[in-house]
Amino acid sequence: MSASRAAAPGPGGGAGEPEPVPLRGRGLELEGSSTPTSHRLLAYSDALLSIIATVMILPVAHTKIHPDQKLGESIQQLLLAKIAVYLMTFLIVTVAWAAHVRLFQVIKLIDDVLALLNLACMMIITFLPYTFSLMASFPEVPFGIFLFSVCAVVIGLIQAVIVVYGFYHPHLLNHEIQVSENQNFYKRRILKIILRGPVLCFLAAIFSFFFIPLSYVLLGLVIVFPHLTRFIAWCKTRIVGQREEEEEHHSLETFTFYLSEPLSKERVEAFSDGVYAIVATLLILDICEDNVPDPREVREKFHGSLLEALSEYGPNYLAYFGSFVTIGLLWFVHHSLFLYVTKATRLMELLNILSLAFIGGLPLAYQLTSEFAEKSHNELEAIQVSCVITFFASIFQFAIWTTALLHERETLHPFAQYGGNEHAFMFAKLALYPCVSLGAFFLTCLLSEFSTAIFHLMQIVIPFAFLALRIFVRISLAVIKSMVSLSRRKAVLSEEEEACLSPTETLS
Amino acid sequence: MSASRAAAPGPGGGAGEPEPVPLRGRGLELEGSSTPTSHRLLAYSDALLSIIATVMILPVAHTKIHPDQKLGESIQQLLLAKIAVYLMTFLIVTVAWAAHVRLFQVIKLIDDVLALLNLACMMIITFLPYTFSLMASFPEVPFGIFLFSVCAVVIGLIQAVIVVYGFYHPHLLNHEIQVSENQNFYKRRILKIILRGPVLCFLAAIFSFFFIPLSYVLLGLVIVFPHLTRFIAWCKTRIVGQREEEEEHHSLETFTFYLSEPLSKERVEAFSDGVYAIVATLLILDICEDNVPDPREVREKFHGSLLEALSEYGPNYLAYFGSFVTIGLLWFVHHSLFLYVTKATRLMELLNILSLAFIGGLPLAYQLTSEFAEKSHNELEAIQVSCVITFFASIFQFAIWTTALLHERETLHPFAQYGGNEHAFMFAKLALYPCVSLGAFFLTCLLSEFSTAIFHLMQIVIPFAFLALRIFVRISLAVIKSMVSLSRRKAVLSEEEEACLSPTETLS
Repeated sequence: MSASRAAAPGPGGGAGEPEPVPLRGRGLELEGSSTPTSHRLLAYSDALLSIIATVMILPVAHTKIHPDQKLGESIQQLLLAKIAVYLMTFLIVTVAWAAHVRLFQVIKLIDDVLALLNLACMMIITFLPYTFSLMASFPEVPFGIFLFSVCAVVIGLIQAVIVVYGFYHPHLLNHEIQVSENQNFYKRRILKIILRGPVLCFLAAIFSFFFIPLSYVLLGLVIVFPHLTRFIAWCKTRIVGQREEEEEHHSLETFTFYLSEPLSKERVEAFSDGVYAIVATLLILDICEDNVPDPREVREKFHGSLLEALSEYGPNYLAYFGSFVTIGLLWFVHHSLFLYVTKATRLMELLNILSLAFIGGLPLAYQLTSEFAEKSHNELEAIQVSCVITFFASIFQFAIWTTALLHERETLHPFAQYGGNEHAFMFAKLALYPCVSLGAFFLTCLLSEFSTAIFHLMQIVIPFAFLALRIFVRISLAVIKSMVSLSRRKAVLSEEEEACLSPTETLS
Repeated sequence: MSASRAAAPGPGGGAGEPEPVPLRGRGLELEGSSTPTSHRLLAYSDALLSIIATVMILPVAHTKIHPDQKLGESIQQLLLAKIAVYLMTFLIVTVAWAAHVRLFQVIKLIDDVLALLNLACMMIITFLPYTFSLMASFPEVPFGIFLFSVCAVVIGLIQAVIVVYGFYHPHLLNHEIQVSENQNFYKRRILKIILRGPVLCFLAAIFSFFFIPLSYVLLGLVIVFPHLTRFIAWCKTRIVGQREEEEEHHSLETFTFYLSEPLSKERVEAFSDGVYAIVATLLILDICEDNVPDPREVREKFHGSLLEALSEYGPNYLAYFGSFVTIGLLWFVHHSLFLYVTKATRLMELLNILSLAFIGGLPLAYQLTSEFAEKSHNELEAIQVSCVITFFASIFQFAIWTTALLHERETLHPFAQYGGNEHAFMFAKLALYPCVSLGAFFLTCLLSEFSTAIFHLMQIVIPFAFLALRIFVRISLAVIKSMVSLSRRKAVLSEEEEACLSPTETLS
């Protein structure tokens, strides 16, 4: 202990000290240096970003719709602005999150200055939903989009400062860049990519006072730009046929914007966990605020009987438990899937984001099914909206799995690869929700009178289906294996005369 | 790869396979076995529990108080029930969280059944705030407390099932227990501790219909019981002087309820991160819902000028940024502290929980300062409440540090120990917020006319103080070191005749 203390450099002066092996587990230890790894800073940022991305569903879900109104019209008129705010927030925050992941794949260690810069960046990102609210409420006033552009410029500048600071203290960088000879090339390249955003946003801020649509186009360009340049470069290679290779020579593994670009799997998990957790807990907030009866009402209307008053809310409790179970089980499927994913690519991350956007819509589904079921004419629509949300949330999870299977040697654990131990079971797990929600949707179309019953039945049956699934897959696997072993035994018997022990025992 | 596949046992049949070295980083890999470590399940549970613990501050913060009312009375009457719900939720959820930490310090690996059981447990815990809302709204009706007791019984039973399942599949247990000879003893001991809760809650559920105060006493006993038995055992040892040793012989490191009992540092961090993140994001939800002006109002009252309408909300933005900065910097202090903590004990966890309870109160402080500042007679009270909340949140962080210093060889990294490189700087970091908030409190008492100015000045100055702190501590350290080296050089010069190089350069 005293030896490591004596060998340690003064604060901030540890340039050139050896970096611990990159990402061995999550480096929680100080490893004898004064510069900690960024694990907890990233976990906190992921939590903040995932909550911010999802929390804007609350104003959507809390929009009061009168039970006598037709849901079809009211959705179109009342909810549209708020849903737009939610989707814009979700999209922009996930883009900011992806940029953050890229940035901290380059910068591996942090010090106090970086932590404070990161907090400043987070603060401005959390302010973005407010600018969207202004945009949605006042579409013709330039102030909302101006404010948003200014925030985006500041975020980009802070990120640039982080990069410059990181390259000024090279011991903070990741190992690949730290040992590289052309650090300056990387620095310029990363800064170029990062500063492209603020420049476009700055133009958008200026144009917002003259011609708002152009501002929107410019802001949209920030998201599309990397893909556009990638596409142009690809076209060039096709036509000219040379430049690509030269660029390839120097390029980083990250900041490529390829669909196969690796993104930290841990951070994808952490971000997803945040979204699932906040969505699950927003539900109880609703039930606490809406479903505690007023003491005076209980006295007057129900003659002081609390139980009678609460029985009014019966459908709400059912909807609450149904929604919570849905979220919990979708998390469970996600968790099972990512246990077998060994490397997350950009395409998988995009599919995951799409799935999470629909997960974020589940509080809306809860509100619809709890308010409308049993007492209005919008029952059927409410249930179908819920089924559609669940279907898309789960089908994108399934898409992650199929994407991973395409490059299974790189991205999947051997157990889950085609022919692996757990392949069939994973498939069944991932296919369950899409099948059931699609089935329920069409069943409610056919038997619209029983739609509520079908919906509740679906929500109650699914957890048991997950347990039965395990048994079902086990049984079918055992049957297949025993058949295979039987046929093999026959073959062995015909070749030699000795009987061998049945290998089915390995299954028990 | 194919070798590991061939060697792998069938699903669920991996009993007796070697467990990976406990908690080497966070075991994210499958390590060639089909049973994953529980890292992500725990992270998700931490996120859920921390959000649930904190989210009940929202109904408190959203209580509308008329600006003309005196805050003193209205706090006492209107907020008391909601604050009670918040504190009860926070207390109970943290108790449930501590039980969860203990449980999963015994069970190290998970499979699907455990994951689903854990989700069921989480679902019931998230339902608890609703039972508290019922209790607070209808204190004289037994139904609320009955429902709570039933939930607590179910949670306890699920935990018992998890333990039984874990001991039935010993490869899931932690290494210490797995290799131990008296597994049965441990199983019985843990079950006894876990089932004590449900039994008491069951009695509380029954008594709730006859005599409600007794139910509350019984429920309180659940929390106090472990300490009570510990205290009784301690008294016995003092009087009889023998039994303690015998028990010590078999006892586990966890489930002791000593103040020095180790609790997973990672989970303390994850839980704290969740609380800080949700508190920081609840603020923007408020500002999005309250501070977007109504389009019609803008047209009529401000002649269509959005900027004028928004300038009305000036103090709110200031309060928002002030609160966000406070939360961010308190997180930063917490983060800095736990970087140097090598082992978290139960006492440190309790102090951390107390600190977090006040952190959870910050949205209330935001509401008070944003609503009252500049336009009502409750300005002074609002600012003083904010100062008190900040003071307690930070002083408990300081208490964690002093507790850690008491056993610094076990709990602190050498850098932060007395005489270490970073000791002085950590001390300054942790002392800043308590000093400043206490100072602001007394200053507002003396100069009550300038209270708003003082408060805003405090919020703006503190981030710069954190940056200046580093420089200030560095300068003072440099001065001290150069003085020490000067005196040493004199000593050396007097002994030998040769001049040696000044060691101050190591600092630059």
